[in-house]
Amino acid sequence: MKQQLIQPRVLKGFRDYLPGAMIPREALMQTAREVYRSYGFSPIDTPALEYAEILLGKGGDESDKQVFRFQDQGKRDVAMRFDLTVPFARFTSQHLNDIGTPFKRYHIGTVWRGENPQKGRYREFMQCDFDTIGTAANIADIETLLVIHDLLCAIGFEKFTTRVNNRLVLNGLLEKLDLAEQSVGVLRALDKLQKIGADGVSAELTEKVGLSNDQAQQVLKLVTTEGDTETVMSELSTLLAGNERGELGVHNLHELFRCAARAGIPAERIALDVTIARGLDYYTGTIYETFLGDLPGIGSICSGGRYDNLTGLFSKQALPGVGASLGLDRLLAAMEELKMLPGISTPAPVLVILFDAEKSGEYLRIGRELRAAGISTEVYVDPKGVGKQMKYANRKGFQLAIIAGGDEFAVGNWQVKNLQSGEQQTVPEAELIAHVTSELSSDGGSAG
Amino acid sequence: MKQQLIQPRVLKGFRDYLPGAMIPREALMQTAREVYRSYGFSPIDTPALEYAEILLGKGGDESDKQVFRFQDQGKRDVAMRFDLTVPFARFTSQHLNDIGTPFKRYHIGTVWRGENPQKGRYREFMQCDFDTIGTAANIADIETLLVIHDLLCAIGFEKFTTRVNNRLVLNGLLEKLDLAEQSVGVLRALDKLQKIGADGVSAELTEKVGLSNDQAQQVLKLVTTEGDTETVMSELSTLLAGNERGELGVHNLHELFRCAARAGIPAERIALDVTIARGLDYYTGTIYETFLGDLPGIGSICSGGRYDNLTGLFSKQALPGVGASLGLDRLLAAMEELKMLPGISTPAPVLVILFDAEKSGEYLRIGRELRAAGISTEVYVDPKGVGKQMKYANRKGFQLAIIAGGDEFAVGNWQVKNLQSGEQQTVPEAELIAHVTSELSSDGGSAG
Repeated sequence: MKQQLIQPRVLKGFRDYLPGAMIPREALMQTAREVYRSYGFSPIDTPALEYAEILLGKGGDESDKQVFRFQDQGKRDVAMRFDLTVPFARFTSQHLNDIGTPFKRYHIGTVWRGENPQKGRYREFMQCDFDTIGTAANIADIETLLVIHDLLCAIGFEKFTTRVNNRLVLNGLLEKLDLAEQSVGVLRALDKLQKIGADGVSAELTEKVGLSNDQAQQVLKLVTTEGDTETVMSELSTLLAGNERGELGVHNLHELFRCAARAGIPAERIALDVTIARGLDYYTGTIYETFLGDLPGIGSICSGGRYDNLTGLFSKQALPGVGASLGLDRLLAAMEELKMLPGISTPAPVLVILFDAEKSGEYLRIGRELRAAGISTEVYVDPKGVGKQMKYANRKGFQLAIIAGGDEFAVGNWQVKNLQSGEQQTVPEAELIAHVTSELSSDGGSAG
Repeated sequence: MKQQLIQPRVLKGFRDYLPGAMIPREALMQTAREVYRSYGFSPIDTPALEYAEILLGKGGDESDKQVFRFQDQGKRDVAMRFDLTVPFARFTSQHLNDIGTPFKRYHIGTVWRGENPQKGRYREFMQCDFDTIGTAANIADIETLLVIHDLLCAIGFEKFTTRVNNRLVLNGLLEKLDLAEQSVGVLRALDKLQKIGADGVSAELTEKVGLSNDQAQQVLKLVTTEGDTETVMSELSTLLAGNERGELGVHNLHELFRCAARAGIPAERIALDVTIARGLDYYTGTIYETFLGDLPGIGSICSGGRYDNLTGLFSKQALPGVGASLGLDRLLAAMEELKMLPGISTPAPVLVILFDAEKSGEYLRIGRELRAAGISTEVYVDPKGVGKQMKYANRKGFQLAIIAGGDEFAVGNWQVKNLQSGEQQTVPEAELIAHVTSELSSDGGSAG
C-alpha cells in the first residue's frame, strides 16, 4: 500500500536555514554570547508559549492579530511569545527573590509574529537582547554603550557609530517650558525634522501643537544645535539650566562620554544625537541607536535605552533598567552586502579524501588526530571517485584536502592539496599537523 | 487609572531557565556544536511551526493529542514541531538539490509535546541531533560512534560505554530461520529477556509466537552469547553463515570495532550488545545506546542508529542515513547528580567592585582591559556598600573581586581578593592581568 506523498514546503513567512545561511548566523549568536558573558551578563530562557494574558495584558487586543494565539489541549488561552521583553518582565517579577538585583541577563531566542510577511520581514525571527535591571545608576547606561561597542568590534566592524541621546533632556525642556502635556505632539513634529526641515517643524509646532513662537524656537534649538559634543553639551546645559530633570539628562550624557573615552572607546564611534527618540512610551533615559559607516541606510543595527519600569503589568514594585538588542537579521543582511560572510557551507576547513575504503580506519584516525590539534576535519564518508569528492570539497568551501593511498601509507606520507591555489604537497605524517596549521593560517582561514 | 496586576506564572509543563540552570545548559549545547562542527557537520534550522500535515502525515491522528496544533490567522492547520526528525525529512526533500549528498547536519532546537507532564518530562524541551544522510556506507556508522565518543569526552565524562548492535544480525537470523513474518513477536519476546530470563523468553517464543524449539534456541543463542567481542562476533558469524543480510550485519559490526580501535577509541568504551533493538519500525542497521559508568540507571544519554529511508513521506527517492541524538535534559540531570556542574550563576569569574562611583571610568576601563586579555569581568553597576557587593559576588559564585579607591589610584595599585580563600593581595596595575590569570588558573576556574 503506497501512501500519498506530501509536498514538502514551509508556511508563508517562515524559512529554513541551510548551512550557508546558518553558519554565519550561529557564529554571530556565539559572538554575542561571548561578548555578553565577558561583561557578566548571564543567559536565561523562557517558554515559547505563555498564557495569552501574560503576553498581551488583560484585555489587550490591539496586537492580537499579530500574535499566534490559540486554545491548548487544556482549553487554556495561550500565545507564542512575540518579543523577549514581556517574557523578561514576567520572569523578573516571578523570580525576583532568586535572581536579586542588580540583575544582568542576555536572552537569545526565537519570537513569532503573525504580521503580513514583507521583504526581509518574517513571521519567525531571532531576538538577541541584553539588559541590566534593578539599578538607576548611570554606570549601567555607560556599560551598555561599551557592550554595544565591543560587540560590533567582535563581529568584525570597524566603522560604526552609536548615536546616544537622553530622553530627560527633551522631557526636561518641555517641563521647563510648561509643555509636558504636549510632549507626544512635539515628538511627532520633531520626528519629521529630516523630512520637512526646521521651518516645517516650527510651523507644525506652532500651528498644530499650539506652541508659542518662543517655545517652538527653544525646542528646535535643542535638536538643531550643531558642533562637537562639548559645544552641543554646553548649549544643552544653558537651555536646561534650572530644570532638575533636564540637568540630570545632561549630566548623565556628559558622564557617559567622559567614561566611555576613559574606558578606551574611540571618540568617532559615539555621537550625541538629540534628535533620536525611540519607543515614546517605554524609554525614559539614555537611548542608543547604532549605524554602520558603510551602510547607514539599513538603519540601526543595535538599539535600546533606559526604562523606568519593566514590570508594571505584573508587580507594584517599579524596576528600572537599561538594555539593547542586536538586530541579527538586519546585521546579517548588512554583512552579506559588505561581503563579510565567508560563503562556505562547511564548518570544517579540512576534508580527508576517502581514497581507499579498505583504509577507513586510517582516515578516521587522522581525522581524530587533526581534531585533537584543534583543526576541524571532515572525513568523506561515501566511497565515490576522488573527482567527485574534490567537487564536493570545492562546492562546500573546504580549504584543504588530504589524501593518501597505498603508496603514501607504505612510507607514512599524506598529500595535502590547497583547494584555493591548487598546489599539492607531500608531507610526512609527523609533520602533517604543523603543515596543515600553517596552510590554514596563511589562507587567513579559521582552524576551528 | 491603575491596571489590575497579572499574576506572573508559566504554563503547566513549561519552565524558565534561571542563570544557574542556563549556564551549564548553554555550555553543553556549545560543546555539542563544537564537536559536531569539528567533524564537519553543518548547522541547519527549520521553523517551529509547520503545516500539521507535514508533521503528522496525511490523516495521521494517533499522535495528535501530543501535538500543539491550531488554526493560524490564515485558517491554516498548523502545528509546533514535536521532534527534529520529521522537519529534517521535509527539509531534505525540499532542498536536496541545494544540499547534495552526502549531507552531514546537526540541529539543536526546541520541540513541543502536549503530553501530560511528569517528573522530569516537560512540554517544551531541546533536542540535539546529528545525522549523515545520502550514504549507506558503514564508515558513516563508524564515524557516528566516534562523534558520540568525542562528545562525551568533551563534556567531561571518562567512564561511559556505547552499546552497539546491528539490526541486520537479528533480521538476518529471522530470515534464515524463515521467521521474517514473526519478527515483531520475536522482538517483543526478546525485549523481556532481562525480566523473565531465557527460559521465559523461550516459552513465549514457542507458545505465543509459534516458533519451534530449535528456532527458539537459535534466536536465544544469538542474544545470550557471552564473552569478549571477538568470541561473540565469531559465534554470530557461525549462526548467520549463508544469510547475506546477517553476514553484512556481522561484517559491519566487525569493521566498526576494528576501525574504532584504529581511530583511538578505548576498547572499554564500546560494547557489542545484541539485545538492544530501539525504534522497531525506524532503524534498520547499526544501533547505538550510551550509558554512563557512574549512573547507568538513568538510561541511554546518547542514542541513534541507521535508517533506510528518511524521506518516505515526502519523496519517492529513498534516502538512507545514520545519526544520533544527545539527551540534553537527562545528561544535565546526570551531571547535577554527579556534581559535575559548577553551581555558579555568573559567566564571569572576576567582579570589579564599584568602590567610588566618581571613578566609574576607571572601573570600566580596567574591566575592558581584563576582557581584552580574555578574562570575563563584571563591573558592579550599583553604588552600594562594599559589603553588599561582596555578598553579591559570593552569592553568584565569582572567584575574584578587584577593588581600588583613592589610596590605590594614587599609586596605581589594585586589591585582588580571592573569594574562596579570602586572601587579599595588593597588585600594581601593570601586573594585574598576569596576577588574575594565575589566580584563576590555580583555582581551577575558567578564565573566559
